[in-house]
Amino acid sequence: MTCFRKNIEAIEGYTPGFQPKEPGYIKLNTNESPYPPSPRVIEALRAACNEGLRKYPDPMAQAFRQKAAEVLRTRPERVLCGNGSDDVLSIALGSFCGEGDRVAFPSPTYSLYDVLVQIQGGIPVEVDFPEDYSLPEGLRDTGAKLTIVPNPNAPTGTLVPAADLSDLADALCGTGVLLIDEAYVDFAEADCLDLVQKHDNVIVARTLSKSYSLAGLRFGFAIAQEHLIEGMVKVKDSYNVDTLSIAGATAAIGDRGWLRENVGKIKATRGRLIEGLDELGFECLPSQSNFVLARVPAGRSGEQVYTRLLERKILVRYWNKPRLDNCLRISVGSDEEIATLLSALRDIVSG
Amino acid sequence: MTCFRKNIEAIEGYTPGFQPKEPGYIKLNTNESPYPPSPRVIEALRAACNEGLRKYPDPMAQAFRQKAAEVLRTRPERVLCGNGSDDVLSIALGSFCGEGDRVAFPSPTYSLYDVLVQIQGGIPVEVDFPEDYSLPEGLRDTGAKLTIVPNPNAPTGTLVPAADLSDLADALCGTGVLLIDEAYVDFAEADCLDLVQKHDNVIVARTLSKSYSLAGLRFGFAIAQEHLIEGMVKVKDSYNVDTLSIAGATAAIGDRGWLRENVGKIKATRGRLIEGLDELGFECLPSQSNFVLARVPAGRSGEQVYTRLLERKILVRYWNKPRLDNCLRISVGSDEEIATLLSALRDIVSG
Repeated sequence: MTCFRKNIEAIEGYTPGFQPKEPGYIKLNTNESPYPPSPRVIEALRAACNEGLRKYPDPMAQAFRQKAAEVLRTRPERVLCGNGSDDVLSIALGSFCGEGDRVAFPSPTYSLYDVLVQIQGGIPVEVDFPEDYSLPEGLRDTGAKLTIVPNPNAPTGTLVPAADLSDLADALCGTGVLLIDEAYVDFAEADCLDLVQKHDNVIVARTLSKSYSLAGLRFGFAIAQEHLIEGMVKVKDSYNVDTLSIAGATAAIGDRGWLRENVGKIKATRGRLIEGLDELGFECLPSQSNFVLARVPAGRSGEQVYTRLLERKILVRYWNKPRLDNCLRISVGSDEEIATLLSALRDIVSG
Repeated sequence: MTCFRKNIEAIEGYTPGFQPKEPGYIKLNTNESPYPPSPRVIEALRAACNEGLRKYPDPMAQAFRQKAAEVLRTRPERVLCGNGSDDVLSIALGSFCGEGDRVAFPSPTYSLYDVLVQIQGGIPVEVDFPEDYSLPEGLRDTGAKLTIVPNPNAPTGTLVPAADLSDLADALCGTGVLLIDEAYVDFAEADCLDLVQKHDNVIVARTLSKSYSLAGLRFGFAIAQEHLIEGMVKVKDSYNVDTLSIAGATAAIGDRGWLRENVGKIKATRGRLIEGLDELGFECLPSQSNFVLARVPAGRSGEQVYTRLLERKILVRYWNKPRLDNCLRISVGSDEEIATLLSALRDIVSG
């Protein structure tokens, strides 16, 4: 017999990117940063490894909220911390999506959204991106309680203008909340933080996993008007972020110089990666993130190239899904890793 | 307008115990350990504060599962890690409790259970403990999908025999899951780990917050048969425990000598606390945990004594609730803290 809820029985669950146990792999499959976190973060973490761990953490992570508010020019009361931005997403789902409620998002996109909606017993409503990956008009009238738009989008890396999301927030006003997932925004030309000020139904989600090189720390946050934050606080675990990650995250968001430098390096390598892929006949979407979605040259299949790279211990991401099955998503690694990848691809496509 | 689910609008949320920002308090209100964590934990944590944080953690925290399985004589596949045992509880609720489903637990107990059920839109079914705090018979036929029994119970500190919980698991077999919350079990004379072997509908939850002095780390785990673990994995956040807490928790559960010593000290102080309270006319329930529920002497109110202690910067826990309103829950602090508390109580009850 099973006691699980039917919706839980039915789902497969989210599959995280492959994390090899053995060394020797070039990992360009999970959008991790190739560079270590800021030395100030390591220092803050080590300092917090002390007997204070016997006490519960600050339930609201006030130290981080204050620093984030200062840096992002908002108010601490508009910041909600999460155990990774996945936790922020789960909290939003728990807040706005009951059984049978609709949650809309564009397609193709981050596959976790669909899983989270199904865990809630909600109804996922996918609206296809047009060919140019501009914001789908259809998101305006889905009847969704919650609409999620990642910007830049994953796995395409494309960005839609903040003005279009502002119009969408207006269209949803009174019926639903718009969550803009800005996991990759530090690699983009613009962000949507201003929309929080303008719209009482907008939540912006951020993470320290990518641009801050802290995927292992699990720290994300939401920015939204106070009434939204206060409601979501009721849904979050009381102590959802721990003492060490609060210390590390506060140091991380305070070190703007390090962030600028890290992001600068990755954007420069991204340019070299796209150039190299173009030369080999791959077609790249215009990336505003730390990864590139590249269509393999005509006559090849995405799966085939993926497998050939895997044989050489180079990991990228491939999905057997419409619009993605001839593509690879390649994380921007170090210059050296990207050079090795490009050389391997040269062999593969000329072989 | 509000977009929140009705059940979220309706709840007040869980109130964590007061965490003063200023120093100078004696904190006997949140069942934290008065002693620092094992030096091996601090060492493991510091060693893990390195550039590896740029990568995602192991989604299943395999290192911890293996060590826990070894120490607790079970299989790694029967262990599921959580961001605190609150996360384990949330995962269980998400797994077994849909909207309108019943979740049963005894009363009075840990107030978070009720909050978690309401977040799911489920129906909390409270079954009163009898006067002697033995397992309520009524838990056998509540129609609940999930039954939660903390053992030892909070805030009473009382323990029910494993055999009674085994009978309850039999009674629920085929209709519901029994989650035994063993947050405080390291301070008790017996545990229910054997029931996992015997029953395919039993989940045992543990935490490192209390007996391991690691409330700030947020690490808990569930032990259950494989089919239950596999289903709950679908509900948990993909990376719910971070790189540092996996390292610290693995070191913690491996240091049995330290645990024995820590628990020994706390149990000795617990004896002195109960003796002192008895002398002052307080009536203590037989505690198998790191706190004591004490009824204030006749003619006093719990709230009054609580307030007088607060004036002296001594924090204990008080609830204005049936069966608890003449009681204080006092965490077992250090010998010095308990001596200060007893001296303050002497003044207050003789004043």
